[in-house]
Amino acid sequence: MTRRTRRDRTTTVRRTRSTEAYRRLENPFEPPRVLSDDQVAHIHEQAVGFLSSDGMRVLFPEARELLAAAGAAIADDMVRLDPGLVTEALASAPDKFTIHARNPDRDLDIGGTSTNFFSVGGPPFASDAERGRRAGVMSDYVEFMKLCQSFDVIHSLAPCVEVSDVPVGLRHVETMRAQLTLTDKVPYIYARGRQHVRDCMDMISIAHGIDDEGLRERPVTWSNINTNSPLQLDVPMCMGIIDCARLNQPVIMTPFTLAGAMAPVTLAGALVLQHIEALFAITLSQVVSPGAPVVYGAFTSNVDMRSGSPAFGTPEAMKGAFASGQLARHIRLPWRSSGSSASNAVDAQGGYETMINIYGAVMGGADIVLHAAGWQEGGLTASMEKFITDVEMLQILAESMQPVAVDDAELAFDAIREVGPGGHFFGTQHTLDRFETAFYDPIVFTRANFEQWEEEGSKRTDERATDVWKRVLAEYESPSIDSAIAARLDEFVDRTTAKGGSPPD
Amino acid sequence: MTRRTRRDRTTTVRRTRSTEAYRRLENPFEPPRVLSDDQVAHIHEQAVGFLSSDGMRVLFPEARELLAAAGAAIADDMVRLDPGLVTEALASAPDKFTIHARNPDRDLDIGGTSTNFFSVGGPPFASDAERGRRAGVMSDYVEFMKLCQSFDVIHSLAPCVEVSDVPVGLRHVETMRAQLTLTDKVPYIYARGRQHVRDCMDMISIAHGIDDEGLRERPVTWSNINTNSPLQLDVPMCMGIIDCARLNQPVIMTPFTLAGAMAPVTLAGALVLQHIEALFAITLSQVVSPGAPVVYGAFTSNVDMRSGSPAFGTPEAMKGAFASGQLARHIRLPWRSSGSSASNAVDAQGGYETMINIYGAVMGGADIVLHAAGWQEGGLTASMEKFITDVEMLQILAESMQPVAVDDAELAFDAIREVGPGGHFFGTQHTLDRFETAFYDPIVFTRANFEQWEEEGSKRTDERATDVWKRVLAEYESPSIDSAIAARLDEFVDRTTAKGGSPPD
Repeated sequence: MTRRTRRDRTTTVRRTRSTEAYRRLENPFEPPRVLSDDQVAHIHEQAVGFLSSDGMRVLFPEARELLAAAGAAIADDMVRLDPGLVTEALASAPDKFTIHARNPDRDLDIGGTSTNFFSVGGPPFASDAERGRRAGVMSDYVEFMKLCQSFDVIHSLAPCVEVSDVPVGLRHVETMRAQLTLTDKVPYIYARGRQHVRDCMDMISIAHGIDDEGLRERPVTWSNINTNSPLQLDVPMCMGIIDCARLNQPVIMTPFTLAGAMAPVTLAGALVLQHIEALFAITLSQVVSPGAPVVYGAFTSNVDMRSGSPAFGTPEAMKGAFASGQLARHIRLPWRSSGSSASNAVDAQGGYETMINIYGAVMGGADIVLHAAGWQEGGLTASMEKFITDVEMLQILAESMQPVAVDDAELAFDAIREVGPGGHFFGTQHTLDRFETAFYDPIVFTRANFEQWEEEGSKRTDERATDVWKRVLAEYESPSIDSAIAARLDEFVDRTTAKGGSPPD
Repeated sequence: MTRRTRRDRTTTVRRTRSTEAYRRLENPFEPPRVLSDDQVAHIHEQAVGFLSSDGMRVLFPEARELLAAAGAAIADDMVRLDPGLVTEALASAPDKFTIHARNPDRDLDIGGTSTNFFSVGGPPFASDAERGRRAGVMSDYVEFMKLCQSFDVIHSLAPCVEVSDVPVGLRHVETMRAQLTLTDKVPYIYARGRQHVRDCMDMISIAHGIDDEGLRERPVTWSNINTNSPLQLDVPMCMGIIDCARLNQPVIMTPFTLAGAMAPVTLAGALVLQHIEALFAITLSQVVSPGAPVVYGAFTSNVDMRSGSPAFGTPEAMKGAFASGQLARHIRLPWRSSGSSASNAVDAQGGYETMINIYGAVMGGADIVLHAAGWQEGGLTASMEKFITDVEMLQILAESMQPVAVDDAELAFDAIREVGPGGHFFGTQHTLDRFETAFYDPIVFTRANFEQWEEEGSKRTDERATDVWKRVLAEYESPSIDSAIAARLDEFVDRTTAKGGSPPD
């Protein structure tokens, strides 16, 4: 292996490692602790006590009635939970479950030692270097679905970007059709009202060839519920919890506890509020359907006290994430964390901040890392260049989870003796036998030296990422889908369109 | 706290957190493991066995003689070590020690749970956005010393950039004078020959007001030795180990094991070679002076198999670092890891790669993280913008090591009740009492929203970093130094200059 020229590199056909090993990631790391066991237990007990003494405001009457029937105390729209009710809910919620995709290779194991990366979800804007920053439209959404499908390390879809050119009443069916036909990965459902959730469940049932009974038998989708922190659950969120629980589909319960704004300015205060709200939402789901899968969601970060803007990749967020993992393990539930950054550009800040969050989530043993690729501007923009650089980093972390072999062949004493003092390993048989797949091969990072990099245009990573997403989109291959199923999905969308769409609640 | 305008932000005098807490960092995290205990023990035993059966090449006769006198087997320039000799060396090397600075606030605790960040060391080029990339000169070195002095999170100096405009025979005294007068932190010594080390020891003795007896009583500097991997120790490196050990000054023993080039292409092979070479160098130091402080250095990464260039921030490096920490703990010695990146720009790749290495070093319990700020282009360039963005990240990690309090004031139930469901915490007394110092306040990262960021010129992090290093240099304050000591240091440099410098070996 001598140093190759640029021409060699482009003309040599070269094997690279398969990325199929990234499809199911087993996390080998023991999670770090920022709280003592006593502190964890104290926060949990204080949260349970607060739910009993003060409770939460619930804006949806049906949710209040369901909780009242289970023994909760209701006063106007305030609902207080007896500690026994919370304990019972935590006992019935499963500690692990599998979400089935229409391609079994894409099933998600949630809980235990598995790690799952979900793409960015929710930004109103899409961005790339060629077309700039703009309100997201269906064609952007389609491109993000294709990017998600193209990388094994993206385990589940998420609502990559808002689709502003489709009416609200049809957005959920158009995006669900795109999820189910452009990819074979697990689709998400946005809990934006009763009929929306129903439509999405129907379309997923078509894709799986099942009915409601089949849905209740196994998870095939997921939703995320953000409480209206502090201490409030609104109507569509309650509906989402209830309707998903009735069909036994998983919900991630994520309090929106930004310290200093919707939560106390102290980390312990933000954590106890997060825990109160998550426990409440989990209890509601278990009251509706004991055993329904739920995930403990954590999004505790802080606002910037100069600007009032959300801050991400902060030390407070990092400690909050490790602490949230400890709280989730205390109640034996899977834990969702996040990748995120406040940076407005695909630059060094974006790299550091996202890495702090995602590395922290991985080391901390998160079962789900939402917003793992593409999140920019504190969640306002889904960036295609950021998606690519984030995927690079996710693949690096995925590689780092692969086990290390220590046997005679790997210890390589024969090669060490063959090379001898002061030699080099480039040309040994041990190297030649392995060099093509020995190391992780980056998709956008470069190891070109400065002169070669200058000769190639001194492109920063974000500039190279533009070339990468364009190539990935050009090479995208759609997964196979039964033509009868595709036709039924089209009919469903046509029917919903013909009736003028489904209104949100 | 309502959102402030830009004018408010620049005109408001605002307290920020003191960074003094970063001066001594206690790492609260339990290090992750990528090897089983059996694998660690096996690698160690295999390395000890290889030192006995094959040994290493030693190019300095005095080193061979010292080892022979201690019982090593010599054949030509090959030296084999009996397992008992290695075991004895590991028993005499201390598991922790303190390196004393001329300002006791800057002392370094090495070993145990302390974490120490050392600046970049060794690049031939300096770089910043205003002056471009150029061969490093004394004025660059001076600026880096001022930057190192200005941030509490930089615990020790390191050879930030080569000084090409000072003759080799004087470079060590000019740079040592700069270290000792522009900063009050622990200075490094480059092991570039017998007289160079002697001159540096003399100058440090002047700064501390001690003689050789005083030097032997306590560590006041450090050096780093790279073996000539594979399996070779050259003359200046042997001299450095011997001369530092005789004066009881710490040496970091760092094999230069880039998998695929100077080490086997397999991780286990690179690790066992690293361990063989480190054990050999440690044994030499302990033979010279039992009890002399040493550090287990690890730099195992891999080359890029397309270009032959070193790669950094790779999954192989990350696993190698965690494994190195396990090997160092197995032999009860402090462990040095590194921050590094192959990127040619202060961009997203630079952020991700450096973060992988430094976060990994911190989580992995590294006692020393060398190259923690400013390293670019695989070590060819010391970048001022990279230095600033790295310091931001080091401060974030330093904050993350601060303990979390969980008491009534921090849990903030009074504030949670005062705010109530659906409210916000901006105006509560609990927030007002704490907001000025509640959160880490970034030096170069921004939380400005997109519109404000555009209005301010759409500056990427690297562009903002230029403003920061210029401001820090403008505000630099030199530490106090006794004028008699400064005069003696000047005399020393003048004397060395008058004799035409000290030749390297």
